[in-house]
Amino acid sequence: MILVNGQPAHTLPVEDRGLQYGDGLFETLRIHHGSPVCWERHRTRLSAGCRRLGIPLPGPDLLDAEISRVCAGVDAGVLKLILTRGPGPRGYAPPKGAQPTRILQVAPAPRHPDAWSREGVAVRLCTTRLARNPRLAEIKHLNRLEQVLARSEWDDEVQEGIMRDTEGQVVEGVMSNLFLVCGDGLRTPDLQHCGVAGITRARVMELADRRGIPCRVGAISEADLWRADGLFLTNTLIGIWPVSCLAGKTRPVPPLVGHLREALGLTEGGCRA
Amino acid sequence: MILVNGQPAHTLPVEDRGLQYGDGLFETLRIHHGSPVCWERHRTRLSAGCRRLGIPLPGPDLLDAEISRVCAGVDAGVLKLILTRGPGPRGYAPPKGAQPTRILQVAPAPRHPDAWSREGVAVRLCTTRLARNPRLAEIKHLNRLEQVLARSEWDDEVQEGIMRDTEGQVVEGVMSNLFLVCGDGLRTPDLQHCGVAGITRARVMELADRRGIPCRVGAISEADLWRADGLFLTNTLIGIWPVSCLAGKTRPVPPLVGHLREALGLTEGGCRA
Ligand SMILES: Cc1ncc(COP(=O)(O)O)c(C=O)c1O
Ligand SMILES: Cc1ncc(COP(=O)(O)O)c(C=O)c1O
Repeated sequence: MILVNGQPAHTLPVEDRGLQYGDGLFETLRIHHGSPVCWERHRTRLSAGCRRLGIPLPGPDLLDAEISRVCAGVDAGVLKLILTRGPGPRGYAPPKGAQPTRILQVAPAPRHPDAWSREGVAVRLCTTRLARNPRLAEIKHLNRLEQVLARSEWDDEVQEGIMRDTEGQVVEGVMSNLFLVCGDGLRTPDLQHCGVAGITRARVMELADRRGIPCRVGAISEADLWRADGLFLTNTLIGIWPVSCLAGKTRPVPPLVGHLREALGLTEGGCRA
Repeated sequence: MILVNGQPAHTLPVEDRGLQYGDGLFETLRIHHGSPVCWERHRTRLSAGCRRLGIPLPGPDLLDAEISRVCAGVDAGVLKLILTRGPGPRGYAPPKGAQPTRILQVAPAPRHPDAWSREGVAVRLCTTRLARNPRLAEIKHLNRLEQVLARSEWDDEVQEGIMRDTEGQVVEGVMSNLFLVCGDGLRTPDLQHCGVAGITRARVMELADRRGIPCRVGAISEADLWRADGLFLTNTLIGIWPVSCLAGKTRPVPPLVGHLREALGLTEGGCRA
């Protein structure tokens, strides 16, 4: 099912700035037992993105109602919400009084082997780099060519790729965030220059905080990846994936990764954290 | 008139990767007396972009035929050609055997006061920076949020903005390329890190070459802008605009700028250069 501005539809006007310039934002949510998981967190990131790009956020009731409508009766699925600046005349200048376009698409939940969550996944180091631009960092905007190019680097050989920025700093996965297990603590790259501030990343950081597990946010080099006691990836749809193989080399999966994964309670679909 | 994959249409499937990820390219051409101006040059840039992104370029005859069709009978206008990777399932991975989407839109020619071409325009120095990513430099892709943010910095106070990259180097205008007049020669920023390799920029460089006017391509700082004897901007729709005011300060317009503008023959719509 697809809703465009509240109406069942499969198409969008060609003049929409989402198409013309990638002028918009998106959120990918899990649907569990007919409800969106962690919707408040996604809404918060969406509204941060709107503020950054100067796109008016639709009234909360409107989004709530439309989301309830498309999630109703879906036991397990994925909701992609796209919000663009809407249609506009030719030219980069955002039109005054823009009427943002809301697109809600529901898809089946992806099916990944259980072993990927329990035992880990194989990951490559992408050659495609992320450009540094603080203005576009953290928010989930529609300019995703870097992810598209990075994801084109492999077929099925690995399950995910790790991306560095143009200065060589490690940032995130192509479609996920990255954590390092170092002794009893965690580390994760800061996202001041690039990367998406993942909802699952925030949940893991809060969970670590509640359990008294220190989590340092900062610059991470490729060497840090090799020195770490373990690595794991986070995203809304996968929850936590341990990394059991990096660039062809076997990596240990510390028990802490499994503990965090269970505590996140992804399987029950909850957003307790 | 809009053609989507050769059919008159005003909409596009929501699943198109042009919308989902900005996964595509565009070209903006002038239409003069029913024909696209410099189409071969635009086609060359489009095909370079296709190679870079791994998008199959539609057969030349197909594009030629569709472009002739939409330009027919248009005395003066603008043709925007968008080529996306086409529709695809969820996820960044480009689908195998992608069927690119061709969108051709015709709009009226923009009307700018003659004085802007003859006497010059006022330009600001944008605070929005361009991120550096060689993989996306030079091509005219659909990830244009930086231009949208930069263009949001002003209303009518100025006619164009000059953009620096995140390292402070001067790159181009928001919707144009930049040249400096220095003595008897020209300088223009190299575009190895970011910026669009403009068709008009290439025409000016070739023209300079034919006239024995040296043109140096390289790094340009903000200080270089202030030291230059003159500045001008180029793009398909404006041709050449001298800069008569930069960041509120009057700038001289050397006679060379007018000579180049006349030699480009924009007014006759030709693509002689
Ligand atoms: C580039 C990128 N980084 C990180 C993430 C993880 O974010 P979240 O935990 O909100 O799903 C995603 C999710 O799709 C992503 O596309
Ligand atoms: C970002 C940017 N740079 C440069 C140009 C100038 O390119 P061209 O001479 O091909 O029109 C444009 C044209 O729209 C542009 O959008």
